[in-house]
Amino acid sequence: MVVEEPLEIRVGSVTAAEEDLVALAVTMRTPGNDFELASGFVLTEGIATHPDAIRSVAYCGLPPEEQEYNVVTVRLAGEIDLERHRRSMFTTSSCGVCGKASIDSVEVVCRHRPVGATVDAEVVVGLPVALRARQRFFDETGGLHAAGLFTDGELRVVREDVGRHNAVDKVVGWAIAAGVVPLDNTILVVSGRAGFEIVQKAAVAGIAVVIAVSAPSSLAVSAADRLGVTLVGFARDDRFTIYTHADLIDRS
Amino acid sequence: MVVEEPLEIRVGSVTAAEEDLVALAVTMRTPGNDFELASGFVLTEGIATHPDAIRSVAYCGLPPEEQEYNVVTVRLAGEIDLERHRRSMFTTSSCGVCGKASIDSVEVVCRHRPVGATVDAEVVVGLPVALRARQRFFDETGGLHAAGLFTDGELRVVREDVGRHNAVDKVVGWAIAAGVVPLDNTILVVSGRAGFEIVQKAAVAGIAVVIAVSAPSSLAVSAADRLGVTLVGFARDDRFTIYTHADLIDRS
Repeated sequence: MVVEEPLEIRVGSVTAAEEDLVALAVTMRTPGNDFELASGFVLTEGIATHPDAIRSVAYCGLPPEEQEYNVVTVRLAGEIDLERHRRSMFTTSSCGVCGKASIDSVEVVCRHRPVGATVDAEVVVGLPVALRARQRFFDETGGLHAAGLFTDGELRVVREDVGRHNAVDKVVGWAIAAGVVPLDNTILVVSGRAGFEIVQKAAVAGIAVVIAVSAPSSLAVSAADRLGVTLVGFARDDRFTIYTHADLIDRS
Repeated sequence: MVVEEPLEIRVGSVTAAEEDLVALAVTMRTPGNDFELASGFVLTEGIATHPDAIRSVAYCGLPPEEQEYNVVTVRLAGEIDLERHRRSMFTTSSCGVCGKASIDSVEVVCRHRPVGATVDAEVVVGLPVALRARQRFFDETGGLHAAGLFTDGELRVVREDVGRHNAVDKVVGWAIAAGVVPLDNTILVVSGRAGFEIVQKAAVAGIAVVIAVSAPSSLAVSAADRLGVTLVGFARDDRFTIYTHADLIDRS
């Protein structure tokens, strides 16, 4: 059975005392690669403005001990206006809430426009198959989402989670640790649908091509269009649909 | 294409000024049945301790006008400790974060133990088929989750959303408006996986039987066990698996 447990992500500056770190979010996740999840989340949600700003990632040393592995602390360089981030993540800012405002706020975070290489249609068709083949748990439980990162048609990393956003954050966290963010010339493949937040996370990490096995949402397409992400949906059974920036897909 | 737009849910007391309402959450949702979504969310997340405490649900009358339909205000009877609720939803309480603590906190909210009627195995097999037949959008877009509420084998309501939790909240919100919460002797069928939050929302609404087309998570099973919910997974192709409280399913 798929394991699901809450993970709390706390952030603060490198000099803050452990008890002064601020709880940023609690996410229901599949345990494993928790540091990747936490650092990926902190970057793709715009809390860290650059991968280098993430100075340490650790399990919380505070009691109670039995919960040690459900709290991860991320320390960032410099001063951080956490109140602002908490507001922008969980509640509206004064400029309101709508799809356009959501894309605007991601655009502010994306200082680096994604850089991508052209992908052959044949490769597009093969990537979801390669991801599926590498999913360790799916066949047994049917309950995990997967996200895979490819370069030159090769799978670099695959992460699975009960939460599809978490799977993407783990992939990005892996890339942060590997020192390869922004992820120029990479392709993100997700096993399910492509909503706004998947495109947001890809764009912030600098991923230029996102391929989803299932449907995209309207807001995901608008976001991909504005943020410079090539969005491909329904990539299965040797077919796919290109929604934005089709120039990166070579159908010839 | 599936439409996705943010919805902000604001809550406050019946006497509060519009600008004093507190933004509780922003959820990415498919527009439609927004009042159901907001009232369902407020109940299933434990903000309203009883359906009758929900006194009004409305779009926000404040500017900017173009965002009017993306902000819903819910007014509750009596005083509400919003700070406490915001903490418990988005961050940890002092008692920490782990699966057990998550179930504990739901148990506190569930004053009414779900009451259910026995369901024949034949009926269990048929419900996901009935739900699928009534999904208005799925066949066209492949991008929406569905939740359906059944009594005596009859479908009472079906709601669809890009977010599977939202689909369940909309169903519960429909039931609140219909005055039929707690939902004794009802069955909730969801088109996807059953995670912790699906079981939480069902239990708080008093639904005794949850049937998921796909896999449950470990924490969903633990929660269903503790909260008195019969949890059925992988209900497809004339088969299903019972995970908890099997006495409500008649396999004879």
